[in-house]
Amino acid sequence: MTRPPPRGFPEAEHRARLALVQAAMAAEGLAALLLTTEPEIRWITGFLTRFWESPTRPWFLVVPAQGDPVAVIPSIGAELMRATWIRDVWTWSSPDYADDGVSLLAATLAERTPPDAGIGTPMGRESLLRMPLGDWHALADRIGRRRFRDDRGIMRALRMVKSEAEIDKIAAACAVAGRAFARAPEILIPGRPLSEVFRRFQILCLEEGADQVPYLAGGAAPGGYGDVISPASDRPLERGDVAMLDAGLSRDGYFADFDRNWSLGPPAPEVAEAHARLVEAADAAAGLARPGATPADLFHAMRAVLGGGELDVGRLGHGLGMQLTEPPSLIAADLTPLRPGMVLTLEPSIPLGPGRMLVHEEVIVVREDGPRFLSPRIGPEIPAI
Amino acid sequence: MTRPPPRGFPEAEHRARLALVQAAMAAEGLAALLLTTEPEIRWITGFLTRFWESPTRPWFLVVPAQGDPVAVIPSIGAELMRATWIRDVWTWSSPDYADDGVSLLAATLAERTPPDAGIGTPMGRESLLRMPLGDWHALADRIGRRRFRDDRGIMRALRMVKSEAEIDKIAAACAVAGRAFARAPEILIPGRPLSEVFRRFQILCLEEGADQVPYLAGGAAPGGYGDVISPASDRPLERGDVAMLDAGLSRDGYFADFDRNWSLGPPAPEVAEAHARLVEAADAAAGLARPGATPADLFHAMRAVLGGGELDVGRLGHGLGMQLTEPPSLIAADLTPLRPGMVLTLEPSIPLGPGRMLVHEEVIVVREDGPRFLSPRIGPEIPAI
Repeated sequence: MTRPPPRGFPEAEHRARLALVQAAMAAEGLAALLLTTEPEIRWITGFLTRFWESPTRPWFLVVPAQGDPVAVIPSIGAELMRATWIRDVWTWSSPDYADDGVSLLAATLAERTPPDAGIGTPMGRESLLRMPLGDWHALADRIGRRRFRDDRGIMRALRMVKSEAEIDKIAAACAVAGRAFARAPEILIPGRPLSEVFRRFQILCLEEGADQVPYLAGGAAPGGYGDVISPASDRPLERGDVAMLDAGLSRDGYFADFDRNWSLGPPAPEVAEAHARLVEAADAAAGLARPGATPADLFHAMRAVLGGGELDVGRLGHGLGMQLTEPPSLIAADLTPLRPGMVLTLEPSIPLGPGRMLVHEEVIVVREDGPRFLSPRIGPEIPAI
Repeated sequence: MTRPPPRGFPEAEHRARLALVQAAMAAEGLAALLLTTEPEIRWITGFLTRFWESPTRPWFLVVPAQGDPVAVIPSIGAELMRATWIRDVWTWSSPDYADDGVSLLAATLAERTPPDAGIGTPMGRESLLRMPLGDWHALADRIGRRRFRDDRGIMRALRMVKSEAEIDKIAAACAVAGRAFARAPEILIPGRPLSEVFRRFQILCLEEGADQVPYLAGGAAPGGYGDVISPASDRPLERGDVAMLDAGLSRDGYFADFDRNWSLGPPAPEVAEAHARLVEAADAAAGLARPGATPADLFHAMRAVLGGGELDVGRLGHGLGMQLTEPPSLIAADLTPLRPGMVLTLEPSIPLGPGRMLVHEEVIVVREDGPRFLSPRIGPEIPAI
């Protein structure tokens, strides 16, 4: 067991990220960037807390064109934010029904930007404005001639490429998941309800070093499971089932996300064949994952192995990092050039009949000289229990 | 141990909620309501999945002025949505970079509303529009003369009052947390790092019946801890510490959220006194929690017991249900009349010195004849381990 990396990042890492953001802002003519979501704010500041689970309060980070960012946050977060490298922390007592940070944020923007500034905020794919729409409109009315506009994908593009320190954290999370999966046969016992298996698998993840298990999906049924987003039912596992667990656990703020399949008893030939083909598909995609290739290339490589079966899950993998799923998407339309440091899941699926499917998932990081697996690579045989 | 209630809700419960929404929509002159967040969509449909952890895809529910709701969702969710009582499920293959549900949603709104319709969506306190802002603007451009406007707090007000079936689910989650807290002395061992305590406490929650543990906060330090939103450090517990764990676990989609304190060894007199006062403050607030009283009344009752010490955490409790924190807020400005069925946490805190505080939290439900505790009520003495 490799020792996991130390928690957090040195200030220099956050300053390097800030420099990338400000360079991109300059190219887009943005006088400031307004960030409102957990991963965006954490990527710049290092502010890590589970408190975002509470939807009540808005949190803001203003990144000026030059100089250090300003956190405009509820006072309950002041101590933790001041423990990061951020020195400029403006607070208000939230929730404030009359003015939940809007005038403080407007004042910050007025102080740090010229009167006709263009202020960017993420508005494109997979982005979110984490504040009430009413407050957003009120804010726009209080910044004079300044105007909000799309950040043109700055944050999306920069966060897609992980630093070595980030890759180490994702690798550590994947190692935790790998150890939990290795122990899964302990808990996959015929007669045990799937809901109980889910509970016990989360325990395995915690025992192996997860800080938390924000996501767990899976299924178990004879010869393949149905959809893979339903909560676990109380149906007991039975001999002949194919069981799948898909773990989205995190450690120090970075996610692992991959799955494993097991056959309870000897697998049916079509299950064994499907599993082998899924592994082959993931390997085919991994083999193409070099700088300059695209998510579309990986998608087509998997489709070529998987054959004609259509299963409309929307994509065959995605980015991974501070969130369970991140850009890019492994779809035909995603032509993002792969770059060293991108972390991707490869997630091929095969339909086996009405309500029956198999899904497999691995995690790779793109390197100059090709891919490296962050999930423990497996062979074509579905493990039988 | 009381048997937990069965999973899910009967269709009649969802239809009753829909009737409340449509009555409120009629009063506000809304031709439709657009919902985009997990709790809003689940409250109407029963659509329960951990898949929302993935931020990639938008999900929409259209509630027309009359008739049943229409789900406009990514195809990956179709099977699960069709397993609810919702019959009208429109899907697209998401992520779609050219059009991620926008034209399908616009078409749905055009089919279900008159050309000059006012379409509501939550824009007020604690609300969120869960879709990219760019797509929101594109949508507004594609609905002709229809206009989006604030739902005027319809969803906020209705969800604040829980049904008996919802109260049963929150009570079941609180019972799980209560059993986990009763076992906490097993894991609060001097020499053990707080990070390891956090891991083991999540395991206790799962062992006692939690489906997942989305939130855990806490602290441990001599004579009181610092802020309560930081992640657990690796500092080992020591004799003389006051330890606190604040569990936000869920079962069948409903949360428990309360905390407990322990003294490792005999408590210092000021710690013992502070704990007794926190319990007294929560009891004072509970004593007022009857229909017609307000969150402000409960806030002032706690402040009167707590005395002058100022700790700027923003509020002294909140609503609880499908989310870790929900409206109302126990602050001076919240004058919402309490109604039977409202579930509240009472969360007084006391500063003890620089970087030292104590927080206590209970959960009650407001009944016609007064409050009922959903968390196991405790006495004034801080338990010593």
